[in-house]
Amino acid sequence: MAPVAPRSGDAIFANVERVNAELFTLTYGAIVRQLLTDLEEVEEVNKQLDQMGYNIGIRLIDEFLAKSNVSRCIDFKETAEVIAKVGLKMFLGVTATVGNWNAEGTTCSLILEDNPLVDFVELPDTCQGLYYCNILSGVIRGALEMVSMKTEVTWIRDMLRGDDAFELQLKLLKQVPEEYPYKDDE
Amino acid sequence: MAPVAPRSGDAIFANVERVNAELFTLTYGAIVRQLLTDLEEVEEVNKQLDQMGYNIGIRLIDEFLAKSNVSRCIDFKETAEVIAKVGLKMFLGVTATVGNWNAEGTTCSLILEDNPLVDFVELPDTCQGLYYCNILSGVIRGALEMVSMKTEVTWIRDMLRGDDAFELQLKLLKQVPEEYPYKDDE
Repeated sequence: MAPVAPRSGDAIFANVERVNAELFTLTYGAIVRQLLTDLEEVEEVNKQLDQMGYNIGIRLIDEFLAKSNVSRCIDFKETAEVIAKVGLKMFLGVTATVGNWNAEGTTCSLILEDNPLVDFVELPDTCQGLYYCNILSGVIRGALEMVSMKTEVTWIRDMLRGDDAFELQLKLLKQVPEEYPYKDDE
Repeated sequence: MAPVAPRSGDAIFANVERVNAELFTLTYGAIVRQLLTDLEEVEEVNKQLDQMGYNIGIRLIDEFLAKSNVSRCIDFKETAEVIAKVGLKMFLGVTATVGNWNAEGTTCSLILEDNPLVDFVELPDTCQGLYYCNILSGVIRGALEMVSMKTEVTWIRDMLRGDDAFELQLKLLKQVPEEYPYKDDE
């Protein structure tokens, strides 16, 4: 199959069904609050948010592949760029910068200056260990696993903790080779 | 202050910040699943979803009033129409039909044929008593309470239970008179 040019995140985002961002933000806030009440331990909430994100990511990748015309990324570098410029735009309406690559090209950061998940959010002192946006790291981890990349995704900077941006580190642990021969239309 | 014509739901929806509807749907699904796991009793999940919705509604009304140019509704009839045509459109991207008024004009139904909350959702047999969309009734109840209308909001029809539409009954219990004199710009 001849490669089809990936559509830009903007173009896709303009055409997918959407809901109001504030409704999403408040709904997400309600989840976090619920988990804090039910689980009590902040560390457990972090884990649960990551797991919820993972479950979402393994499904969201289908919509991404269906609507983005991204067929296969050559390497982890291209994958990171596609997440930053197409994936985040398509789902959250924002983009990220990719940086802080290690020499081997297996670790990088997505740097977000805008993050709709945290609008109006302030963490009380009791939640200082919370990774409020941990659902997002889970989504990326889950989605990548569905395209054969096992990754570890962790927050390096977090504006809710006083940092100047959100920085999400992606570490490629293992790339499962795809099975050949395969047919593109399968 | 001279009344400003309310903006149409479409016009507002086109201009507010939005996120991908599928992300919202899956995130909402993750909440419901989490509550089912944590609370076990379906009836408790219904209550909790309603309460989460209420907490969202009392905040979302501010965004609604700020962006819709809707200043004050004359009566409950106008209020129901505004929810159906402007509010639901502005937040969920869908509209509802208003019907089934009682003679006193205190009870009516919002009828939705499209509901982004339930895309891809099928309820297992163990969840038969669940009102999956109960967050929505809570949002409307909370938002109306902030504009001095105490209501009871209940599901009459639910497509997840095999009905042919979603029908949400709004019953006006009490309209708290606004305090006069007030200034419009306060």
